[in-house]
Amino acid sequence: MPHINVDKNLPGIRSLMAFSPETATPMGELANSLLRINEGLSMAEREMIASHVSYLNDCFYCQQSHGAIAACYLDGNNELVEQVKKDYIHADIPDKLKALLAIAGSVQKGGKHVTSEQVESAKILGATDKDIHDTVLIAAVFCMFNRYVDGLAANTPTDLSTYPLRAKQIAEKGYGNYIFSTKQPVSENKEI
Amino acid sequence: MPHINVDKNLPGIRSLMAFSPETATPMGELANSLLRINEGLSMAEREMIASHVSYLNDCFYCQQSHGAIAACYLDGNNELVEQVKKDYIHADIPDKLKALLAIAGSVQKGGKHVTSEQVESAKILGATDKDIHDTVLIAAVFCMFNRYVDGLAANTPTDLSTYPLRAKQIAEKGYGNYIFSTKQPVSENKEI
Repeated sequence: MPHINVDKNLPGIRSLMAFSPETATPMGELANSLLRINEGLSMAEREMIASHVSYLNDCFYCQQSHGAIAACYLDGNNELVEQVKKDYIHADIPDKLKALLAIAGSVQKGGKHVTSEQVESAKILGATDKDIHDTVLIAAVFCMFNRYVDGLAANTPTDLSTYPLRAKQIAEKGYGNYIFSTKQPVSENKEI
Repeated sequence: MPHINVDKNLPGIRSLMAFSPETATPMGELANSLLRINEGLSMAEREMIASHVSYLNDCFYCQQSHGAIAACYLDGNNELVEQVKKDYIHADIPDKLKALLAIAGSVQKGGKHVTSEQVESAKILGATDKDIHDTVLIAAVFCMFNRYVDGLAANTPTDLSTYPLRAKQIAEKGYGNYIFSTKQPVSENKEI
Protein backbone atom coordinates (compact mmCIF):
# COMPACT_ATOMS: atom_id res chain seq x y z
CA MET A 1 0.00 0.00 0.00
CA PRO A 2 1.38 3.43 -0.89
CA HIS A 3 2.75 5.51 2.01
CA ILE A 4 0.62 8.49 0.95
CA ASN A 5 -2.90 8.89 -0.36
CA VAL A 6 -2.63 8.63 -4.14
CA ASP A 7 -5.07 7.63 -6.90
CA LYS A 8 -5.41 3.85 -6.55
CA ASN A 9 -6.34 3.51 -10.22
CA LEU A 10 -2.94 4.71 -11.38
CA PRO A 11 0.11 2.47 -11.22
CA GLY A 12 3.68 3.27 -10.19
CA ILE A 13 5.12 6.69 -10.89
CA ARG A 14 1.91 7.83 -12.63
CA SER A 15 0.08 7.93 -9.29
CA LEU A 16 2.87 10.05 -7.78
CA MET A 17 2.98 12.39 -10.75
CA ALA A 18 -0.76 12.91 -10.53
CA PHE A 19 -0.29 13.72 -6.83
CA SER A 20 2.38 16.32 -7.66
CA PRO A 21 1.91 17.75 -11.17
CA GLU A 22 4.32 20.66 -10.48
CA THR A 23 7.26 18.28 -10.17
CA ALA A 24 5.86 15.80 -12.70
CA THR A 25 6.13 18.24 -15.60
CA PRO A 26 9.93 18.75 -15.45
CA MET A 27 10.44 15.04 -14.70
CA GLY A 28 8.51 14.13 -17.85
CA GLU A 29 10.52 16.69 -19.83
CA LEU A 30 13.77 15.30 -18.45
CA ALA A 31 12.73 11.78 -19.51
CA ASN A 32 11.88 13.06 -22.99
CA SER A 33 15.13 14.99 -23.44
CA LEU A 34 17.24 12.05 -22.30
CA LEU A 35 15.40 8.96 -23.53
CA ARG A 36 13.62 10.11 -26.69
CA ILE A 37 16.61 10.93 -28.88
CA ASN A 38 18.72 8.80 -31.20
CA GLU A 39 21.80 11.01 -31.04
CA GLY A 40 24.78 8.81 -30.30
CA LEU A 41 22.91 6.20 -28.28
CA SER A 42 19.68 4.91 -29.80
CA MET A 43 16.37 5.11 -27.91
CA ALA A 44 16.53 1.32 -27.50
CA GLU A 45 20.01 1.55 -25.95
CA ARG A 46 18.90 4.34 -23.61
CA GLU A 47 15.91 2.33 -22.39
CA MET A 48 18.08 -0.76 -21.91
CA ILE A 49 20.46 1.25 -19.70
CA ALA A 50 17.40 2.50 -17.78
CA SER A 51 15.97 -0.98 -17.25
CA HIS A 52 19.38 -2.40 -16.26
CA VAL A 53 19.85 0.28 -13.59
CA SER A 54 16.26 -0.23 -12.39
CA TYR A 55 16.99 -3.97 -12.13
CA LEU A 56 20.11 -3.24 -10.05
CA ASN A 57 17.98 -1.00 -7.81
CA ASP A 58 15.39 -3.81 -7.58
CA CYS A 59 12.61 -1.50 -8.77
CA PHE A 60 10.09 -3.88 -10.33
CA TYR A 61 7.84 -1.18 -11.79
CA CYS A 62 10.61 0.75 -13.58
CA GLN A 63 12.50 -2.29 -14.85
CA GLN A 64 9.30 -3.73 -16.34
CA SER A 65 8.09 -0.41 -17.75
CA HIS A 66 11.36 0.58 -19.40
CA GLY A 67 12.21 -2.97 -20.43
CA ALA A 68 8.87 -3.07 -22.28
CA ILE A 69 9.62 0.27 -23.96
CA ALA A 70 13.06 -0.98 -25.05
CA ALA A 71 11.40 -4.10 -26.49
CA CYS A 72 9.03 -1.87 -28.51
CA TYR A 73 12.06 -0.28 -30.20
CA LEU A 74 13.58 -3.76 -30.80
CA ASP A 75 10.67 -5.39 -32.65
CA GLY A 76 9.49 -7.08 -29.48
CA ASN A 77 12.82 -8.75 -28.64
CA ASN A 78 12.09 -9.20 -24.93
CA GLU A 79 14.73 -11.90 -24.63
CA LEU A 80 17.52 -9.48 -25.47
CA VAL A 81 16.13 -6.85 -23.09
CA GLU A 82 15.94 -9.39 -20.25
CA GLN A 83 19.48 -10.54 -20.86
CA VAL A 84 20.86 -7.00 -20.95
CA LYS A 85 19.00 -6.29 -17.73
CA LYS A 86 20.34 -9.30 -15.85
CA ASP A 87 23.55 -10.41 -17.60
CA TYR A 88 24.63 -7.93 -20.26
CA ILE A 89 28.15 -9.35 -20.45
CA HIS A 90 26.83 -12.35 -22.37
CA ALA A 91 24.23 -10.46 -24.40
CA ASP A 92 24.46 -10.00 -28.17
CA ILE A 93 25.10 -6.25 -28.06
CA PRO A 94 28.05 -4.08 -29.19
CA ASP A 95 31.10 -3.94 -26.89
CA LYS A 96 30.69 -0.16 -26.69
CA LEU A 97 27.26 -0.61 -25.10
CA LYS A 98 28.70 -3.18 -22.69
CA ALA A 99 31.36 -0.65 -21.62
CA LEU A 100 28.65 1.97 -21.08
CA LEU A 101 26.51 -0.47 -19.07
CA ALA A 102 29.54 -1.04 -16.82
CA ILE A 103 29.67 2.73 -16.19
CA ALA A 104 25.91 2.78 -15.51
CA GLY A 105 26.36 -0.03 -12.99
CA SER A 106 29.01 1.99 -11.17
CA VAL A 107 26.78 5.07 -11.10
CA GLN A 108 24.05 2.93 -9.51
CA LYS A 109 26.43 2.16 -6.62
CA GLY A 110 27.45 5.82 -6.29
CA GLY A 111 29.04 8.49 -8.49
CA LYS A 112 32.56 7.91 -7.21
CA HIS A 113 32.48 4.26 -8.28
CA VAL A 114 32.97 5.33 -11.92
CA THR A 115 36.66 4.92 -12.76
CA SER A 116 38.85 6.62 -15.34
CA GLU A 117 39.65 3.12 -16.62
CA GLN A 118 35.96 2.43 -17.30
CA VAL A 119 35.62 5.71 -19.17
CA GLU A 120 38.83 5.10 -21.13
CA SER A 121 37.64 1.61 -22.12
CA ALA A 122 34.36 3.02 -23.39
CA LYS A 123 36.17 5.73 -25.38
CA ILE A 124 38.50 3.18 -26.99
CA LEU A 125 35.40 1.28 -28.12
CA GLY A 126 34.00 4.42 -29.75
CA ALA A 127 31.99 6.13 -27.00
CA THR A 128 31.88 9.91 -27.35
CA ASP A 129 31.77 12.41 -24.50
CA LYS A 130 28.03 12.74 -25.14
CA ASP A 131 27.54 8.96 -24.93
CA ILE A 132 29.34 8.92 -21.57
CA HIS A 133 27.46 11.98 -20.32
CA ASP A 134 24.11 10.52 -21.33
CA THR A 135 24.89 7.11 -19.81
CA VAL A 136 25.86 8.64 -16.46
CA LEU A 137 22.80 10.89 -16.46
CA ILE A 138 20.38 8.09 -17.46
CA ALA A 139 21.76 5.93 -14.64
CA ALA A 140 21.53 8.84 -12.18
CA VAL A 141 17.99 9.73 -13.30
CA PHE A 142 16.83 6.16 -12.71
CA CYS A 143 18.42 6.15 -9.27
CA MET A 144 15.96 9.01 -8.71
CA PHE A 145 12.88 7.47 -10.40
CA ASN A 146 13.43 4.09 -8.70
CA ARG A 147 13.69 5.72 -5.25
CA TYR A 148 10.66 7.91 -5.92
CA VAL A 149 8.50 4.89 -6.83
CA ASP A 150 9.68 2.50 -4.12
CA GLY A 151 10.32 5.16 -1.45
CA LEU A 152 6.61 5.99 -1.54
CA ALA A 153 5.63 2.33 -2.06
CA ALA A 154 3.67 3.17 -5.20
CA ASN A 155 1.31 0.48 -6.50
CA THR A 156 3.15 -1.92 -8.78
CA PRO A 157 1.15 -4.20 -11.09
CA THR A 158 2.50 -7.73 -10.97
CA ASP A 159 0.65 -8.83 -14.12
CA LEU A 160 3.38 -8.53 -16.74
CA SER A 161 0.87 -8.46 -19.60
CA THR A 162 -0.16 -4.92 -18.60
CA TYR A 163 3.20 -3.23 -19.25
CA PRO A 164 3.50 -3.58 -23.07
CA LEU A 165 0.29 -1.61 -23.69
CA ARG A 166 1.58 1.46 -21.89
CA ALA A 167 5.04 0.95 -23.39
CA LYS A 168 3.60 1.08 -26.89
CA GLN A 169 1.95 4.42 -26.11
CA ILE A 170 5.23 5.90 -24.83
CA ALA A 171 7.21 4.43 -27.72
CA GLU A 172 4.82 6.14 -30.12
CA LYS A 173 4.21 9.45 -28.37
CA GLY A 174 6.98 9.98 -25.83
CA TYR A 175 6.82 10.90 -22.16
CA GLY A 176 5.65 14.26 -20.94
CA ASN A 177 1.98 14.41 -20.07
CA TYR A 178 1.41 10.78 -21.00
CA ILE A 179 3.40 9.64 -18.02
CA PHE A 180 0.96 11.01 -15.49
CA SER A 181 -2.29 11.18 -17.42
CA THR A 182 -5.23 10.37 -15.18
CA LYS A 183 -7.62 9.89 -18.06
CA GLN A 184 -7.08 6.20 -18.54
CA PRO A 185 -6.99 4.42 -15.19
CA VAL A 186 -5.31 1.03 -15.17
CA SER A 187 -8.44 -0.61 -13.80
CA GLU A 188 -10.30 0.18 -16.99
CA ASN A 189 -7.84 -0.40 -19.74
CA LYS A 190 -4.95 -2.28 -18.14
CA GLU A 191 -2.49 0.34 -19.20
CA ILE A 192 0.65 1.18 -17.26
CA MET B 1 39.76 15.86 -13.75
CA PRO B 2 36.31 15.50 -15.32
CA HIS B 3 35.70 12.33 -17.35
CA ILE B 4 34.42 14.39 -20.30
CA ASN B 5 35.50 17.65 -21.89
CA VAL B 6 33.55 20.37 -20.05
CA ASP B 7 34.18 24.09 -19.47
CA LYS B 8 36.98 24.23 -16.91
CA ASN B 9 35.83 27.63 -15.67
CA LEU B 10 32.54 26.25 -14.38
CA PRO B 11 32.35 24.25 -11.16
CA GLY B 12 30.34 21.12 -10.35
CA ILE B 13 26.98 20.58 -11.95
CA ARG B 14 27.15 23.92 -13.77
CA SER B 15 29.85 22.57 -16.10
CA LEU B 16 27.68 19.52 -16.88
CA MET B 17 24.58 21.61 -17.45
CA ALA B 18 26.46 23.85 -19.85
CA PHE B 19 27.58 20.69 -21.69
CA SER B 20 23.97 19.49 -21.98
CA PRO B 21 21.51 22.40 -21.92
CA GLU B 22 18.61 20.22 -23.17
CA THR B 23 18.65 18.17 -19.98
CA ALA B 24 19.74 21.11 -17.81
CA THR B 25 16.53 23.03 -18.38
CA PRO B 26 14.13 20.45 -16.88
CA MET B 27 16.62 19.71 -14.09
CA GLY B 28 16.67 23.39 -13.13
CA GLU B 29 12.87 23.49 -13.27
CA LEU B 30 12.65 20.39 -11.10
CA ALA B 31 14.95 22.02 -8.53
CA ASN B 32 12.82 25.18 -8.57
CA SER B 33 9.52 23.33 -8.20
CA LEU B 34 10.81 21.23 -5.32
CA LEU B 35 13.20 23.49 -3.43
CA ARG B 36 11.84 26.99 -3.97
CA ILE B 37 8.50 26.69 -2.19
CA ASN B 38 7.50 27.20 1.43
CA GLU B 39 4.41 24.99 1.26
CA GLY B 40 4.53 22.59 4.20
CA LEU B 41 8.31 22.37 4.41
CA SER B 42 10.20 25.66 4.34
CA MET B 43 12.88 26.34 1.75
CA ALA B 44 15.47 26.09 4.55
CA GLU B 45 14.17 22.65 5.55
CA ARG B 46 14.18 21.47 1.94
CA GLU B 47 17.79 22.57 1.46
CA MET B 48 18.80 20.91 4.74
CA ILE B 49 17.31 17.61 3.56
CA ALA B 50 19.21 18.08 0.27
CA SER B 51 22.54 18.74 2.00
CA HIS B 52 22.04 15.85 4.44
CA VAL B 53 21.42 13.39 1.58
CA SER B 54 24.39 14.82 -0.35
CA TYR B 55 26.50 14.31 2.78
CA LEU B 56 25.35 10.67 3.01
CA ASN B 57 26.26 10.26 -0.68
CA ASP B 58 29.65 11.86 0.04
CA CYS B 59 29.12 14.48 -2.69
CA PHE B 60 31.27 17.39 -1.55
CA TYR B 61 30.05 19.85 -4.18
CA CYS B 62 26.33 19.33 -3.52
CA GLN B 63 26.56 19.21 0.26
CA GLN B 64 28.54 22.47 0.31
CA SER B 65 26.35 24.20 -2.30
CA HIS B 66 23.02 23.30 -0.73
CA GLY B 67 24.29 23.68 2.82
CA ALA B 68 25.29 27.24 1.91
CA ILE B 69 21.86 27.91 0.41
CA ALA B 70 20.17 26.57 3.57
CA ALA B 71 22.37 28.87 5.65
CA CYS B 72 21.23 31.84 3.53
CA TYR B 73 17.64 31.11 4.55
CA LEU B 74 18.70 30.73 8.21
CA ASP B 75 20.44 34.08 8.68
CA GLY B 76 23.84 32.50 8.12
CA ASN B 77 23.46 29.78 10.76
CA ASN B 78 26.07 27.45 9.29
CA GLU B 79 26.48 25.65 12.58
CA LEU B 80 22.90 24.35 12.49
CA VAL B 81 23.23 23.34 8.85
CA GLU B 82 26.44 21.42 9.56
CA GLN B 83 24.86 19.64 12.51
CA VAL B 84 21.76 18.66 10.55
CA LYS B 85 24.01 17.38 7.79
CA LYS B 86 26.17 15.22 10.03
CA ASP B 87 24.17 14.51 13.23
CA TYR B 88 20.58 15.74 12.93
CA ILE B 89 19.41 13.65 15.89
CA HIS B 90 21.11 16.11 18.27
CA ALA B 91 20.31 19.27 16.28
CA ASP B 92 17.95 21.96 17.54
CA ILE B 93 15.22 21.31 14.96
CA PRO B 94 11.58 20.16 15.26
CA ASP B 95 10.95 16.44 15.83
CA LYS B 96 8.86 16.40 12.65
CA LEU B 97 11.90 17.41 10.60
CA LYS B 98 13.98 14.75 12.35
CA ALA B 99 11.40 12.12 11.37
CA LEU B 100 11.50 13.34 7.76
CA LEU B 101 15.32 13.30 7.74
CA ALA B 102 15.14 9.65 8.84
CA ILE B 103 12.95 8.93 5.80
CA ALA B 104 15.39 10.84 3.55
CA GLY B 105 18.25 8.74 4.94
CA SER B 106 16.37 5.56 4.04
CA VAL B 107 15.69 6.81 0.51
CA GLN B 108 19.42 7.45 0.13
CA LYS B 109 20.07 3.75 0.78
CA GLY B 110 17.29 2.69 -1.60
CA GLY B 111 13.55 3.22 -1.96
CA LYS B 112 12.58 0.00 -0.22
CA HIS B 113 14.44 1.02 2.95
CA VAL B 114 11.62 3.44 3.82
CA THR B 115 9.36 1.71 6.36
CA SER B 116 5.68 2.18 7.22
CA GLU B 117 6.83 2.81 10.80
CA GLN B 118 9.02 5.73 9.69
CA VAL B 119 6.14 7.23 7.74
CA GLU B 120 3.71 6.69 10.63
CA SER B 121 6.12 8.35 13.08
CA ALA B 122 6.42 11.39 10.81
CA LYS B 123 2.62 11.62 10.45
CA ILE B 124 2.12 11.45 14.23
CA LEU B 125 4.54 14.38 14.52
CA GLY B 126 2.45 16.41 12.05
CA ALA B 127 3.89 15.53 8.64
CA THR B 128 1.33 15.72 5.83
CA ASP B 129 1.25 13.50 2.76
CA LYS B 130 2.81 16.39 0.84
CA ASP B 131 5.66 16.70 3.37
CA ILE B 132 6.38 12.98 3.01
CA HIS B 133 6.10 13.11 -0.78
CA ASP B 134 8.43 16.11 -1.00
CA THR B 135 10.96 14.59 1.41
CA VAL B 136 11.15 11.35 -0.57
CA LEU B 137 11.43 13.23 -3.87
CA ILE B 138 14.08 15.67 -2.59
CA ALA B 139 16.15 12.72 -1.33
CA ALA B 140 15.65 10.88 -4.63
CA VAL B 141 16.51 13.97 -6.69
CA PHE B 142 19.78 14.43 -4.81
CA CYS B 143 20.65 10.78 -5.35
CA MET B 144 20.48 11.83 -9.00
CA PHE B 145 22.34 15.16 -8.74
CA ASN B 146 25.09 13.64 -6.55
CA ARG B 147 25.65 10.79 -9.02
CA TYR B 148 25.61 13.17 -11.99
CA VAL B 149 28.31 15.38 -10.43
CA ASP B 150 30.58 12.65 -9.08
CA GLY B 151 29.86 10.10 -11.83
CA LEU B 152 31.39 12.52 -14.33
CA ALA B 153 34.03 13.71 -11.84
CA ALA B 154 32.99 17.34 -12.25
CA ASN B 155 35.39 19.94 -10.89
CA THR B 156 34.72 20.60 -7.21
CA PRO B 157 36.14 23.75 -5.61
CA THR B 158 37.71 22.93 -2.26
CA ASP B 159 37.85 26.58 -1.13
CA LEU B 160 34.77 26.80 1.08
CA SER B 161 34.68 30.59 0.85
CA THR B 162 33.50 30.35 -2.76
CA TYR B 163 30.16 28.61 -2.07
CA PRO B 164 28.26 31.34 -0.16
CA LEU B 165 28.48 33.81 -3.07
CA ARG B 166 26.70 31.47 -5.45
CA ALA B 167 24.31 30.39 -2.69
CA LYS B 168 23.24 33.99 -2.15
CA GLN B 169 22.42 34.33 -5.84
CA ILE B 170 20.26 31.17 -5.81
CA ALA B 171 18.60 32.16 -2.51
CA GLU B 172 17.61 35.46 -4.11
CA LYS B 173 16.73 34.38 -7.63
CA GLY B 174 16.12 30.61 -7.62
CA TYR B 175 17.52 27.91 -9.87
CA GLY B 176 16.67 27.60 -13.51
CA ASN B 177 19.07 29.33 -15.84
CA TYR B 178 21.25 30.53 -12.98
CA ILE B 179 22.39 27.01 -12.28
CA PHE B 180 24.19 26.61 -15.56
CA SER B 181 24.91 30.15 -16.58
CA THR B 182 28.23 30.42 -18.36
CA LYS B 183 28.40 34.17 -18.08
CA GLN B 184 30.22 34.34 -14.78
CA PRO B 185 33.03 31.80 -14.72
CA VAL B 186 34.30 30.81 -11.30
CA SER B 187 37.83 31.87 -12.15
CA GLU B 188 36.73 35.48 -12.47
CA ASN B 189 34.33 36.06 -9.67
CA LYS B 190 34.72 33.05 -7.37
CA GLU B 191 31.11 32.13 -7.67
CA ILE B 192 29.79 28.61 -7.53
